Amino acid sequence: MFITFEGCEKSGKSTQARLLSRYLKACGFKTLFIREPGSTVLGEKIRRILLDKRNDRMSLATEMLLYMAARAQLIEEVIRPALARGAVVLCDRFQDSTLAYQGYGCGLEIAVLEKVGRWATAGLTPDLTLLLDSWQSRDKLRNTSLPDRIESRPDAFHNRVKKGYRALARKYPARIKTIRVQPSILQTQAKIREIVESCLLKKSSDKKRPSRS
Amino acid sequence: MFITFEGCEKSGKSTQARLLSRYLKACGFKTLFIREPGSTVLGEKIRRILLDKRNDRMSLATEMLLYMAARAQLIEEVIRPALARGAVVLCDRFQDSTLAYQGYGCGLEIAVLEKVGRWATAGLTPDLTLLLDSWQSRDKLRNTSLPDRIESRPDAFHNRVKKGYRALARKYPARIKTIRVQPSILQTQAKIREIVESCLLKKSSDKKRPSRS
Repeated sequence: MFITFEGCEKSGKSTQARLLSRYLKACGFKTLFIREPGSTVLGEKIRRILLDKRNDRMSLATEMLLYMAARAQLIEEVIRPALARGAVVLCDRFQDSTLAYQGYGCGLEIAVLEKVGRWATAGLTPDLTLLLDSWQSRDKLRNTSLPDRIESRPDAFHNRVKKGYRALARKYPARIKTIRVQPSILQTQAKIREIVESCLLKKSSDKKRPSRS
Repeated sequence: MFITFEGCEKSGKSTQARLLSRYLKACGFKTLFIREPGSTVLGEKIRRILLDKRNDRMSLATEMLLYMAARAQLIEEVIRPALARGAVVLCDRFQDSTLAYQGYGCGLEIAVLEKVGRWATAGLTPDLTLLLDSWQSRDKLRNTSLPDRIESRPDAFHNRVKKGYRALARKYPARIKTIRVQPSILQTQAKIREIVESCLLKKSSDKKRPSRS
């Protein structure tokens, strides 16, 4: 099963994904937690280019193509083999990030991003996407001493990203589940576990059901 | 005017492009000689990733997307501004390399490469492409002590690339002019200058002719 975590900066995605990963491991699931861009030698090199503030002349098309390049590598080298072994793969960011950031945030055409994305991912879509929606993220971010190239963009950009995520959640309601971030990390985690458990149960009962074909 | 040089490794592209650049400068043209991938700070970082032999697990999709990313950056940062200043831009490799190497050579679908390419280049097509066609390139290459990741591929790959270039030349006869590489560098250069001069004359007479619209 392939689960992705999405949301704006400092929405708590990584923390929640890590907690879920530990929980699923404790429940006996083979679990793999990865982040995007990155989690391969090549992807981490691309990540460094993408987040380096010195690369301030990067064109929007270049940025999008670099994210796609890191994604294609991660899928072929890590995600597909892990899914084939039966692991639950938890990925911090995936294709929806490109749609939200480069599409809704930067204004690149959504239809083009979806087309290139379908090709780069060879059609791999998450079984479940957990969208962490929080109102306080930008204030928290201002306390970060060294924001990266993307974090440094103005508030208006991050507001468009947030609206973009909400538009995606409306467009793909079966796959994207919105989690309203709670003041307590454990409260948010409880909501996440509830959704993931029901999804795992559904998946396992789908498998047991005899095929009609 | 935008002129690209294409051909297999060691076909003499870079040498010929450099000689042409010097000649055009001596004739009074503003001239810019660049190479692809590279010729921007960001593009050179991507180039290092692409040619590094340690990146031997790079997926084909990643490879293609990295070339496209470097190209998009080069166009926005260097090529379009130079063309706007009226310069003759000479580029060692461009979109045809992706079609020949990742398409014909590696088997990625040509239609997809053309679609992503049109998007990454924002529709910028060379006015003239000089394809250096040589039979002896692979033997010469074996004398190179440190071939890079692409040069290290087997002969069968490079033969497909060569055939791919010939197919492209048949497909786009108005743009791609094939130069049979001569034993003498200067003989080859003379042929190149002949083609470029006639193209420059045509372009300048096109400009002088009153528009019909």
